[in-house]
Amino acid sequence: MPGDLPHDDISRAIPEEAAAPRDESALLARMLPHLRHGTEVEVGPGDDAAVLTLPSPRVVVTTDTLVEGHDFLPHATTPRWIGRKAAVQNLADVAAMGARPHALVVAISAPADTPATVFEELTIGLTARAEADGASIVGGDLGRAEQLTITVTAMGSLPVGQQPVRRSGARAGDVLAIGSPRLGRSAAGLALVLGERALVRTGADGRPTIMLRTVQDSSAAELLQWHDAPEPDLSLGWTVGRCAHAMMDLSDGLVRDGSRLAAASQVTLELDREALAPDVEMLAGLAAELGEDPCAWVLHGGEEHAMLAAFGPGEVPEGFRTIGEVRPVGPGGPCVLLGGEAIDGAGFDHFG
Amino acid sequence: MPGDLPHDDISRAIPEEAAAPRDESALLARMLPHLRHGTEVEVGPGDDAAVLTLPSPRVVVTTDTLVEGHDFLPHATTPRWIGRKAAVQNLADVAAMGARPHALVVAISAPADTPATVFEELTIGLTARAEADGASIVGGDLGRAEQLTITVTAMGSLPVGQQPVRRSGARAGDVLAIGSPRLGRSAAGLALVLGERALVRTGADGRPTIMLRTVQDSSAAELLQWHDAPEPDLSLGWTVGRCAHAMMDLSDGLVRDGSRLAAASQVTLELDREALAPDVEMLAGLAAELGEDPCAWVLHGGEEHAMLAAFGPGEVPEGFRTIGEVRPVGPGGPCVLLGGEAIDGAGFDHFG
Repeated sequence: MPGDLPHDDISRAIPEEAAAPRDESALLARMLPHLRHGTEVEVGPGDDAAVLTLPSPRVVVTTDTLVEGHDFLPHATTPRWIGRKAAVQNLADVAAMGARPHALVVAISAPADTPATVFEELTIGLTARAEADGASIVGGDLGRAEQLTITVTAMGSLPVGQQPVRRSGARAGDVLAIGSPRLGRSAAGLALVLGERALVRTGADGRPTIMLRTVQDSSAAELLQWHDAPEPDLSLGWTVGRCAHAMMDLSDGLVRDGSRLAAASQVTLELDREALAPDVEMLAGLAAELGEDPCAWVLHGGEEHAMLAAFGPGEVPEGFRTIGEVRPVGPGGPCVLLGGEAIDGAGFDHFG
Repeated sequence: MPGDLPHDDISRAIPEEAAAPRDESALLARMLPHLRHGTEVEVGPGDDAAVLTLPSPRVVVTTDTLVEGHDFLPHATTPRWIGRKAAVQNLADVAAMGARPHALVVAISAPADTPATVFEELTIGLTARAEADGASIVGGDLGRAEQLTITVTAMGSLPVGQQPVRRSGARAGDVLAIGSPRLGRSAAGLALVLGERALVRTGADGRPTIMLRTVQDSSAAELLQWHDAPEPDLSLGWTVGRCAHAMMDLSDGLVRDGSRLAAASQVTLELDREALAPDVEMLAGLAAELGEDPCAWVLHGGEEHAMLAAFGPGEVPEGFRTIGEVRPVGPGGPCVLLGGEAIDGAGFDHFG
């Protein structure tokens, strides 16, 4: 849906409402009808806490926050996509332990004049992604803040006899693989936003219109959407990913996250330039237009949320593709190499 | 520790640091040593998600956020107390279901120049309160925001055969009781803050000094501290509170929360003026000084986090005290009355 970007409008692109209901109960009345609960939910929203019966008492839990102005820019995304992203980044952490997600709770803080539509659209996005991975939204909290802030906590479970897939289990001789057909898309989309080449408008029906300015590359709109709401196949984590020796989700970039896996496992990760070449090639056109380095997008781009895993030789399952190998730790300590060389640049540090 | 309030300083009262470490790993190095994990924690912070084995697969979960400027004012509290409050308001929601809390995850967003001490002190406060109730902090997230924002998610468990204590189980003839010796303290402390009568300084050792301005009442410092970090006995929820017909925690005021319990149970709650008279009396001196109504503090004051419960006649257990009775719903629908009359005023609505 790309269109022309109006030069005079980079302001908050959220539909107007004549008289938005703004007290808590009115907001909840807009949000709650979108929730659908699985059979494991005994008590949903509306009491002091939710009650659910998981398949096992071994609970996997993680939490992550999206903050307006830091983790998303309102003029470059939609509330529905923000909801999807808030869900997916937490679901990915559960999946990366080899666990199946079951439930989310969501805390939303927002300025007092935030239209009720924003809360409703966030809920639609959160619910859609949660449901796609078999999880329900079981509770939440609404409050005030100067910036729209969404904190999601995801819970999953592991069968009693199953080990969690940790970052520390990779060993020399393993194959390094990624559960995604392409890397670098989210970074490319971010470059469009930061280069002020893209704007997203939300229609009254919640549907987004992506407007691009002086961009020729035909994949630009798709890349922007992938940045705003990445859609990794997380089921790889709790299905075939259970056989991995080590696994994590890619949130801060291949090199930065790979370094964490390398450190936890006390190994070296050697990336295969040939294996990553198609990823770079598919981004080369847009990168040339923006004057950016597509290699950096592939190596350092965050927010892909794909599963990065180490498998035994010959054991890489369908859905994963080989991007390197695991070698013994060298004299310089655990690290990530490309063609035997150290890699320039770094991933994302929230406080760096 | 009351002292004189310096008139020229209502600024952010956080100790300075010459060279605060600000990248994520350095912050974590300051925070993680304060965590202590119970035997149920299989994987703690440091992997994609935490893994814990609960006593039962019936999980109770709730989430709540504290935002600087809305839920606390930095010059009137300390990071350690903010941590305690963030923990207690979530632990209270778990306890109010009759469940024992086990684990917390914590998402903290803060300005980039926030001293590492603040993160460390938040952690100390969170951990201290969690441990007091038998829970561990098992994971979290750090990020950037313009306002210090703390979202805690608490998890507890219910034995397989035990029903959760919901808001909807009160019936006519029940006794209304509260798990607190006094109500209204948090509201009184808030009045000191909003009236600019109190300031809190944090020493290099993390210890607070409460400074009061033109306040004679000897309980003022204690009331301020109760507002900043209320210390309800939450174990009442998962011990004797399990026998309640209905229960909830008092977060938005006796009348507002009582109205919710009344609506969920389709009953009328009749508060006993005599039973609440001592609560009002103990606040009368400070209220007179501030020109406030102590009855309003008791009836409408939020953030007490005590257990409000309905028990069968003659079944009010030790730790709870009777403050009214449950009557059939009247023609006007479910409500809270005082001496048979409707009650003026209202509790707290985040978006009201």
